Amino acid sequence: MSAFKTLNDHDLELMPHRKRGRLVNALSGFKSVNLIGTTNDDGIHNLSIVSSVVHLGSDPALLGMVLRPPVDRERGSHTYWNIRETGCYTINHVPCTHTVQAHQVSARYPESKSEFEAVGFTPIYRCGFDAPAVKESPVRIGLERVDEWEIPQNRCRFVVGQIRWVEFPEDAFAADGYLDIESLGVAAMSSLDGYHRTDKIHRLAYAKPEVYPPGVMQDFKAGWRDG
Amino acid sequence: MSAFKTLNDHDLELMPHRKRGRLVNALSGFKSVNLIGTTNDDGIHNLSIVSSVVHLGSDPALLGMVLRPPVDRERGSHTYWNIRETGCYTINHVPCTHTVQAHQVSARYPESKSEFEAVGFTPIYRCGFDAPAVKESPVRIGLERVDEWEIPQNRCRFVVGQIRWVEFPEDAFAADGYLDIESLGVAAMSSLDGYHRTDKIHRLAYAKPEVYPPGVMQDFKAGWRDG
Repeated sequence: MSAFKTLNDHDLELMPHRKRGRLVNALSGFKSVNLIGTTNDDGIHNLSIVSSVVHLGSDPALLGMVLRPPVDRERGSHTYWNIRETGCYTINHVPCTHTVQAHQVSARYPESKSEFEAVGFTPIYRCGFDAPAVKESPVRIGLERVDEWEIPQNRCRFVVGQIRWVEFPEDAFAADGYLDIESLGVAAMSSLDGYHRTDKIHRLAYAKPEVYPPGVMQDFKAGWRDG
Repeated sequence: MSAFKTLNDHDLELMPHRKRGRLVNALSGFKSVNLIGTTNDDGIHNLSIVSSVVHLGSDPALLGMVLRPPVDRERGSHTYWNIRETGCYTINHVPCTHTVQAHQVSARYPESKSEFEAVGFTPIYRCGFDAPAVKESPVRIGLERVDEWEIPQNRCRFVVGQIRWVEFPEDAFAADGYLDIESLGVAAMSSLDGYHRTDKIHRLAYAKPEVYPPGVMQDFKAGWRDG
């Protein structure tokens, strides 16, 4: 490992805007990569890509995500305005085989153009939701907007949704509730534009002070489904 | 891919507590894994593991994280109370070589016991911060608490911090600001207990509607530093 570089807040401020954006986006660590499916009142679909979905709780089942400061609908923020109008959206995991298409969704298409069509994803409908899900995604989640906060420092919005339905291939669902998203080929992200496959190390047992090191509950390499 | 299983919110409610926790924790996609370093007023260090750090903005540089509903200090929530008392904390990426130690940090040690000592991490100090960083971590970040929200549905806290300093090995920092956390061996997580290495696919160029498919900016496999 090479010499460490230390930057303070002043160094960060002086950094060119895009360079700082790439660095700070890498500092949270690896990120999820998800497609957000919505529809407007005229039935025109929208698909956007986000790397900020975060688990907020399991009871009730809540996921949060960060959206950029909304601008007027004519100028953009279609995901945000569609969620405000219809109250619902889908979160769809991106498989490693579709990172190029998923990334292309971030291009600024006009509202009249569905990104599903522009990029080649297939909309599907579940459980009476108006918001379309992505057929090519192995994990599809339907959410209802339950809360929203404005981040005062930068006017971004933190949107909180409650899970109304979820679907995934049955084989990936372990008896203890673990969903093996790696076996489904789900991608991970770094910074603004880095896409990664994953390679399992292990699952570790619930940690207790008196047991150290903790047991390797399931050694993926040895075939964890038999573990 | 096997047949899809669809669960609605009622199915989720009926699921046993721990099983639902494992499933819902997998539904955001891959997650970061970070050690949070803090100190109390008596100088006793605390280290906790979180998988909920999320990028909130680059200007100013903000990271958020979700902490469980705080209980009285005597009963736990040491990370939360230490941040409230001292106003600062560190976020430290977990390398794949240290996932067993990092996971063990989640065991319920008493406040008088430093997890650094219990588990074998080395505290280091930077830029006048009282909160210790983790020497074994390749990416260490010092943050000052600037905001906090209570999630009304479950009383969890969303803590917002502004980056005051950051350090990482210089070789991993590309000229355009991209920090190559995979080359630093940083781990990713799935659900509550799955640890993963990553394997780069590509970095993709800024997407434009008229250019499709987008250019592969840097093909990692071909040696991206020459790209």
